Amino acid sequence: MDQFLQAAFEEAQKGYDEGGIPIGSVLVHKGKIIGRGHNKRVQNGSPILHGEMDALENAGRQPASVYKECTMYTTLSPCPMCSGTILLYGIPRVVVGENKTFMGEEELLKSRGVDVTVVDSQECYNLMQRFIQEKPTLWNEDIGV
Amino acid sequence: MDQFLQAAFEEAQKGYDEGGIPIGSVLVHKGKIIGRGHNKRVQNGSPILHGEMDALENAGRQPASVYKECTMYTTLSPCPMCSGTILLYGIPRVVVGENKTFMGEEELLKSRGVDVTVVDSQECYNLMQRFIQEKPTLWNEDIGV
Repeated sequence: MDQFLQAAFEEAQKGYDEGGIPIGSVLVHKGKIIGRGHNKRVQNGSPILHGEMDALENAGRQPASVYKECTMYTTLSPCPMCSGTILLYGIPRVVVGENKTFMGEEELLKSRGVDVTVVDSQECYNLMQRFIQEKPTLWNEDIGV
Repeated sequence: MDQFLQAAFEEAQKGYDEGGIPIGSVLVHKGKIIGRGHNKRVQNGSPILHGEMDALENAGRQPASVYKECTMYTTLSPCPMCSGTILLYGIPRVVVGENKTFMGEEELLKSRGVDVTVVDSQECYNLMQRFIQEKPTLWNEDIGV
């Protein structure tokens, strides 16, 4: 795993250790992490703090010019909310840990010109599978099922 | 204006009075507001708390069955982030104050089966125009320009 996906995975692991949903993300600008985060549905009672959203929130207010040079790393394929946010800010590149557990809006992203790379990480997949087996109801809530 | 769009407008006005971006929203379930909010970019330094997102956050964790019976009222056409969130949770109906100031992802929502009604409210439009004239840079930041 490259260092940035590794950092996103560490966020996911942190979420798991907190009893939350183990999805993590980092926002990278010019080779530097400017925001990192993980899903906070359980921890904050938040329906909007998916991993990607938490990373963006933690990066704070950035000018459009910065987002347009960023790469978003996420351990799981981005859902419609997170994909829409990537489109809003014009983030041009997304690196996805895996999309076997959940297929997000990769096609929509690509159709709008976003470069989407799926790493197919076994570590990301195993962590999600372990979590879903333990807490299937919580997982369904997170994806609106 | 109907009572729920009026409530969303009052949220927008509150945001304006706080020096923020005047966009407000309410989430309505079976004729009752279960979440209300307004854009908090300035107030909380947040890039993700658009009006709709704030209303959803304030509604807290809800089961999928509740979202699927909700209507989202928003003073301005929902951006890609907020539209993606509407799709994630399967909110079936969106009432939009106006879309002359900004045209969001109404076509995407409709293509996924969401019922989108645009009220074309002069009050919503006037408040946004006043704000944009006063703080054009802040407005551009909010829509990723």
